[in-house]
Amino acid sequence: MISIESGIVFGPELCGCIHKLNPSHVFIVTDSVVGPLYGPKLKNSLSCLGCPVHILEFPAGDVHKTRATKEYLEDQMLQKSAGRDTCIIALGGGVVLDVAGYLASTYCRGVPLIMVPTSLLAMNDASIGGKNAVNTPYGKNLIGTTYLPQATFCDLDFLETLPLEELKNGFVEMIKHAIILDADFFAFLQTNAKALLNLDMSKLAYAVQKSCELKMLVVRTDTYEEGLRRILNFGHTVGHAIELKSEYRVSHGRAVASGIIVEAAYAVRKGYLQPMVLEQIKALFSSFGIETMACDGFSEKDLYECMCMDKKALKHRPRVVIIKEIGQVESFDGAFCTEYDVLEMGIL
Amino acid sequence: MISIESGIVFGPELCGCIHKLNPSHVFIVTDSVVGPLYGPKLKNSLSCLGCPVHILEFPAGDVHKTRATKEYLEDQMLQKSAGRDTCIIALGGGVVLDVAGYLASTYCRGVPLIMVPTSLLAMNDASIGGKNAVNTPYGKNLIGTTYLPQATFCDLDFLETLPLEELKNGFVEMIKHAIILDADFFAFLQTNAKALLNLDMSKLAYAVQKSCELKMLVVRTDTYEEGLRRILNFGHTVGHAIELKSEYRVSHGRAVASGIIVEAAYAVRKGYLQPMVLEQIKALFSSFGIETMACDGFSEKDLYECMCMDKKALKHRPRVVIIKEIGQVESFDGAFCTEYDVLEMGIL
Repeated sequence: MISIESGIVFGPELCGCIHKLNPSHVFIVTDSVVGPLYGPKLKNSLSCLGCPVHILEFPAGDVHKTRATKEYLEDQMLQKSAGRDTCIIALGGGVVLDVAGYLASTYCRGVPLIMVPTSLLAMNDASIGGKNAVNTPYGKNLIGTTYLPQATFCDLDFLETLPLEELKNGFVEMIKHAIILDADFFAFLQTNAKALLNLDMSKLAYAVQKSCELKMLVVRTDTYEEGLRRILNFGHTVGHAIELKSEYRVSHGRAVASGIIVEAAYAVRKGYLQPMVLEQIKALFSSFGIETMACDGFSEKDLYECMCMDKKALKHRPRVVIIKEIGQVESFDGAFCTEYDVLEMGIL
Repeated sequence: MISIESGIVFGPELCGCIHKLNPSHVFIVTDSVVGPLYGPKLKNSLSCLGCPVHILEFPAGDVHKTRATKEYLEDQMLQKSAGRDTCIIALGGGVVLDVAGYLASTYCRGVPLIMVPTSLLAMNDASIGGKNAVNTPYGKNLIGTTYLPQATFCDLDFLETLPLEELKNGFVEMIKHAIILDADFFAFLQTNAKALLNLDMSKLAYAVQKSCELKMLVVRTDTYEEGLRRILNFGHTVGHAIELKSEYRVSHGRAVASGIIVEAAYAVRKGYLQPMVLEQIKALFSSFGIETMACDGFSEKDLYECMCMDKKALKHRPRVVIIKEIGQVESFDGAFCTEYDVLEMGIL
């Protein structure tokens, strides 16, 4: 269930959903930024459940998305003798959702999970599809599982206090879903960029719902990424490499937007995509105020090395998703990605 | 695929199975006891693969079945830049299979796993059905996943060097499968106890195959233990409590055998089971030389508290599986377990 609400109403619907699970304990997993803002309010709204509701906080930031944080959270739950009939609510952005999702998937071999994303990026990305992970010193998201939440609640009022840069990170994922899956949605985003940036709530509700539905469609078809789901990685092979090489000074959104441009340009050079479409994509990012030149300054070789660590890589050779036009990807007989030829990396 | 062989032939069949997975790296995960004995031989037999084969060893023993050990193994794999196209071979007893299974299930969100159990218990239990876990200071097997292996290879020659007590641990699981699922197999075990204890290879091959098939049947029906799979916990609610209270001085086999007797006696007192059947079960354990009085000396209250931490517990009240006769369990409308009434704990 995805429920899109405008107005942070943690009330009856969320409570009803958890009530059905009949848990002995509820743990709200959140971080040190979101927790103080929304944790107590969410906890109060769950008093109707008649079971203990605990708030577990960890320090905010990607640097705390680690195995150590997961272990700390596990110990907190074990200390309270939480068993398999426990429910975890993930309240926060992508980092919280990833850590809480991994935690839920392995606690007593899996307990029910409810996602309450508080950023536009998390609403479009981490809250849908069940992929979770933690980072290691060797790379991002290398340890984790695929574990679907019982429900996701998107409350658009969270976005009112979100910094503009954070909002843009979310719009990048939305634009990506449009590029790979839906030309009409791409056109909607072209027309409504300004309204969305100004948080026009009715347009935003439509866009979030549409973007989530598009992702859900892919995830339902191929939950464990054996083929089709790889298309959701469009822009991310190069994007992750940019993040890694910049030591995460470049935001996820800018890195992926730049990755989308590099990978779309690769599709043009390989003859799959009309150059005009690449220009349309660049223009759409531009109308959202999103910079797409984040890979400037990195050498081909450096980025390529990072791309080899990408989880889609085969025999240490990176693979990328290829778009043919807006809303269409090349299937490559069901592989939905193809090897990235190092000799063709001219524009990096 | 389960392949039962007599004679430790790691050769063509195992190699062919891994070859199909086309991995970039193979990691043999094993412990400091089994590794030196069989690790190099297994590694040599995989030279045909044409990819690097690494042996990863950790110190033997349940005390090393921890989150720290899993993290150590992950770091070893990450250091070698192993990606999603990696294959993990678990070579060892239950501890190794559990750690390696959990490792495989979360490395790059899941890589292929091959089980090579080297103990009779592991052949009957950990190698089938995909449950894995590590221990925490708060209890056993509380963190893990359910993740099915690609294949399991049981080589009976491993058993030649196994201490008698270890063998008995395996026979307990076999007997449990017979009690809950198959009266004919129970009769086979009654007739052939002595031959099996003497490692009569043809009878042992039949018994291992049958026991694995019985478990597989249950696991295929209910992989994630939403109902039927709970019957595999028969004897384990009380058994795990005995292990915990004895601080693991009582072996897993003796603890579970004692748990089976306590839980079967509970079924008798509740009117589900004929007293004569309880005597038959006691006699079968006895003919295998398996002691079933391991709970003597513990108080009801102590054991009950430990039972409340069992993963089947609901609202901190333990539940047990109830047998009606040999080969039949009570379904309780699909729950396949029922609350253990503390007032009925007379015999503990």
